[in-house]
Parts: sequence; structure tokens; C-alpha cells
Amino acid sequence: MSYTNKSEETKNLTIENDKDVVHIDDIPQNYPTAEIINLSNIFNPPETSAIIILNQEFDITFKLFTKIWENYKLKICADGGANRLFEFLTKEQNITTSIDTVLVEKYLPNFIIGDLDSLKPEIADFYSRHKVKIIQQKTQYSSDLTKSLHLCYTYFLSLSSKDDPLDQIFQGDRSNNYGVELEKGIHTLFKKHMNQNNIFSRCQIVCINGIGGRFDQTIQSIHHLYDNYHCKNGELLFITKADIIFSIAGHDDGGCFLQYDSTFFQNCGSCGILPIGKPTTINLTKGLKWDVVNWDTDIGTGGSVSTSNYFVNDCGIYINCKDDLIMSIEYNWS
Amino acid sequence: MSYTNKSEETKNLTIENDKDVVHIDDIPQNYPTAEIINLSNIFNPPETSAIIILNQEFDITFKLFTKIWENYKLKICADGGANRLFEFLTKEQNITTSIDTVLVEKYLPNFIIGDLDSLKPEIADFYSRHKVKIIQQKTQYSSDLTKSLHLCYTYFLSLSSKDDPLDQIFQGDRSNNYGVELEKGIHTLFKKHMNQNNIFSRCQIVCINGIGGRFDQTIQSIHHLYDNYHCKNGELLFITKADIIFSIAGHDDGGCFLQYDSTFFQNCGSCGILPIGKPTTINLTKGLKWDVVNWDTDIGTGGSVSTSNYFVNDCGIYINCKDDLIMSIEYNWS
Repeated sequence: MSYTNKSEETKNLTIENDKDVVHIDDIPQNYPTAEIINLSNIFNPPETSAIIILNQEFDITFKLFTKIWENYKLKICADGGANRLFEFLTKEQNITTSIDTVLVEKYLPNFIIGDLDSLKPEIADFYSRHKVKIIQQKTQYSSDLTKSLHLCYTYFLSLSSKDDPLDQIFQGDRSNNYGVELEKGIHTLFKKHMNQNNIFSRCQIVCINGIGGRFDQTIQSIHHLYDNYHCKNGELLFITKADIIFSIAGHDDGGCFLQYDSTFFQNCGSCGILPIGKPTTINLTKGLKWDVVNWDTDIGTGGSVSTSNYFVNDCGIYINCKDDLIMSIEYNWS
Repeated sequence: MSYTNKSEETKNLTIENDKDVVHIDDIPQNYPTAEIINLSNIFNPPETSAIIILNQEFDITFKLFTKIWENYKLKICADGGANRLFEFLTKEQNITTSIDTVLVEKYLPNFIIGDLDSLKPEIADFYSRHKVKIIQQKTQYSSDLTKSLHLCYTYFLSLSSKDDPLDQIFQGDRSNNYGVELEKGIHTLFKKHMNQNNIFSRCQIVCINGIGGRFDQTIQSIHHLYDNYHCKNGELLFITKADIIFSIAGHDDGGCFLQYDSTFFQNCGSCGILPIGKPTTINLTKGLKWDVVNWDTDIGTGGSVSTSNYFVNDCGIYINCKDDLIMSIEYNWS
């Protein structure tokens, strides 16, 4: 099929692939591609990688947790997220009596950040004693996830200056909030470093409990995928026990190629291409069981949404959309 | 505060209530009200009530499950939902050794409906032997949830004719698919009964595993809240272990009053007013911690979404919105 877009003849076309596995290895050469995301790199992220833990219940396994923890560089708990981490590890310790190490001492985050209203005093004490930097940011005009993301980016931006980012940016100790102004210092620092034209290469941030708990929090997490330039195209990934969720940016000049290896392909289940927030048009997909052409998608009345679709191309799929979309991929983590 | 709408002076106004509990009992008298939903009736639904179980993992407790089961009239498993019910009950039986009854025999659904691709043969056999009506509907152009909903509505519509709905509509036995045409007979029956001007009073359908599992399924569930006239304003409720999720319809002639008693109020936590389908305007709210006036809401870039809000009025809140919105209410079920 050639690249057809916005042709009247192909309005809202769905093409069912009669095979469940195909091998098309030249998609980016044949279709205008603005972005390539390598999904096989979930456990092999770049140096500028982080894990963020929010104040929501965990439902991933300990095995998956450790695999992410060991592969991602920076670890941040958003406020009461530290309680959740501590409780998750304590519960695991109680279940698995064969563990020699004290899990809460082995899996220490680098930072806890937030207004600290939710952080339990005894857990704050524990992490404080274990040299975790606890940074208070009182503002109610940004979420704990935004505070955590800006902390990540500030850290990554300072990495590009080749100095020790912790010493350079987060000076002092808890008594002076590590040199970060109490109200919204992390946002000021982030903006300052961005304005200095510091750069960081592609970052990859995994949030392991942003989706699947309280539903308004789930939608708040999705909001972040749209709202922040640095969160798009797989730079922020939400991982649940069932799937991987991220955004695909709409481009005028091409689509997004989601590249993966055979291991990833074998562990994929269903997928969804989800126009959360507003109706849009998927110009073209390639490599799905049900590919679409010039296809209007809308969660509102009478519209169509591509769910329970799946990948048939064994090395990647192509999605070209008019506006940003949310992608979910069911994944077998075991 | 008087009812102000679309006034330039009040564009995107947020009003923080300085109290956490207030008592305003005359909201529907003072604000144009098109719809009243009584949230205290969750466990006291009308006769036309049903529980639907989809093919997703359960995360509610057995206690909550039984409370819903015992209060809702019709029980429907959507295809592989029957596997999930059977497995949930078997697991519970194994955990709680003090139970005398065989749970899978005690909690029998009335119907299983779907293309039956997911229903395990041994589970189909079990339910078939226990007189559960298993109706095949082969069409791939409607979801298992839609098939289940149309089965509910057809059942309710037939109730209004005062005859035994099962005998009247679902004649025969499994050998003739209970008289329902194999491809999409349930949709045809639904349309036929609607056209006969049969009526049913307000129905209330609870789905206990439509949200929180696979993310594309979660969004598909939300899609149903927008897509079906009969699903709006709390007629279809999704219940998770953390919250209650339903839609509020946009009206030109007034808002929606969510009424509740003190028990409901005491068990409520955070709430969200979520423009999942498209950006819209919330004309007015009354009774929330952060009430809004003429407030644009948008999950996309730069927009605002009301999450982590909560109820301060102890007997009800008012929401007047331009278009349909999704409401989530955190609830303590224990």
C-alpha cells in the first residue's frame, strides 16, 4: 500500500491483515517518518533515565520492579510515593523470608520531592537517615509528577555540563532544602538551565504507578503525556502490570515508527491507539492487524476507537496521526 | 453565589471553599437542574438493575462483590467474563476454607453472551449444566459490553410488558441459541422492542471490571459511557476497588445534581471531573472544595483538568457542563 493521506477515496478505511505475523523491514524508508521510538530499549534506557514513584498503590510484581530499578539511573519518589515504596518493599520482605538483605535499605531513592503533606514522618526519618535528599516544594499549582519530572530534567541538564550534578545543583543539606527555594525552586532551576541552552539527549522516564489506581489520577497522568514536550514519544512511559502506555506526537511532516525486536514482539498482546482528550484523525498505520487510512477517531458519541488491535509486523509499526495520541501496548512481563 | 454563566467577568474562575464540610440543601431549587442522580442508591438500585462482568481481572474484594451481586437483579457475563467470575470464586473458595457453600454454584449468572471465542469449554460446560443461558453473538462490529448492555435493555423492555421476560424473549434452549439469531440477534431484538415504544424506567447497571485492567479496555469502557444514551448520568457505573466512574451529560437547560446521604459523603475521597472525549467548558459547579465558573477544561496541551478535588457539601453537588464529562469519585468500600 502506498502512502495515501486525506484522499476522499480512502476516508475512514480499515484494512484487516489476513496474517498474524509479517516481516516488513523498510517502513521508515517508505513512509515519511518524523520520529523513531525503540521499544526494545525499555530495559536498556539511555544514561538520562529515571524511575518515578507516585503516591498510588503498586500493582507490578517485585521481579518487574527490580528489573526497572536496576536499569534506570535516577530514582525519585513523589511525596507519599516514598510511603508506597517503603510499604511495597516491607510487604515483599515479609512474604519472601529467604531474602537476606533489608529491602528498604537496598532500594533507596535518590530524591523525595513534593509539598511533603503525604510523606509519613517515620518514613521521612528513615530515608533522611539513609541520605536520601528530601526536597520540599510547597506550590499547589503543579502536581507531584511535574515536580518530579522537573527534578529529573534539571538533573539531566546539569549532567551535560560534565560536573557532578548533585554537588552543582543541589547544594547544602535538608536544613536549607538542598539549596532549592521552598515554594517552587525546582521549576525555577529547570527554566534557568533550559534557558542556558543546556541540552540533554533523549531521556527515558518510567512511572510505575501512575495508571490503574484512582481514576482521576490515571487521567492526570495521561494529561502529563500531552502537556509536557519532554514526555512525548516514549520519553515518559507508564508501566502497569498489564501494559505500557505512552504518547505519540502528531506531526505535519511524518509519522512515528515504533521499532522493536523479536523478544518484544513475542511478548506483546493487544494494543490501543487512543484519542484521549479530543477527536483526531489517524492518517495512516502500517503493521497492525487492523491498519487504518485517513481514519477519524473519537471517544465521544458515535466515534471509533482502535482497541484490541495488535501488532502483526515482527519488527515495528508505523503510526501517522494528525494530533497527539495515547498508545497502550499489552505486555507479558513474566 | 448566583448562577453565572459565560460572563466575561467570570471566565475560568476557581473558588476555593474555605470549609471542608458545608450544608446547602437547596441546590436544585436555586440552580437550573436537568438531572438528579442519587448516589446513595448504589446498593439500592431500581428493579431494572444489572451487574456485568467483562473479560478482565477483578480487583474488588469478595465482600464488595457479594454486596453488589445481592442487590442487583440481572447478572450477565460478557464472554470470557464467565472465566473470570469462575476463577474469582474458585480463588476465594480456596482462601476462605470456612465457607460451606460451593461459591461457583451460589453465584450463577443469568446469561453469558459474546462471540464465545474466549469462553473456556469446561467453564461453558459447567454453566450450561447449571442452567445459565449462553447466547452466542458472532458479530465483531459490536463489543462484548454492548452485547451485554443490549441484552440488559431487551430484558428490561420486556419487563414493562408484564410477561415473564425470559419466556417471552429468550425462548428455546442452547441448541437454537435461545431463539436469538446467531450473528447480531440481540441488537435486532433491542431495536425492535425500542421501536414498539416499550419503556423501562431508569436502569442502573454496574460493571465491576471495566476499568483498571488493560488500558485500551479502560478507554473502551469510557467510550461506552459517551456512546450510549442509556449509559449516561449514572445509569452505567464502573466500580473499581478505588472508585466509582460514570458520565454526566451536558445539557442546554441545566446541570446535574448528584445527591447523596451522610454515609456516602463520609466514604467519599477525591473526585475528578474529566473531559476524556473532548475539551469543553464546565459552566458551574457547587459543593466542591474547588468550585469553578465558566471553566475551560482540556486534557490536551496547556489545559486544566479538575482532579484531586473533593465534595464539601454534605448532601450533594451540582455540575453544569456544556458537553458530556466523566466523573470519578474515590470511595472507601470497606
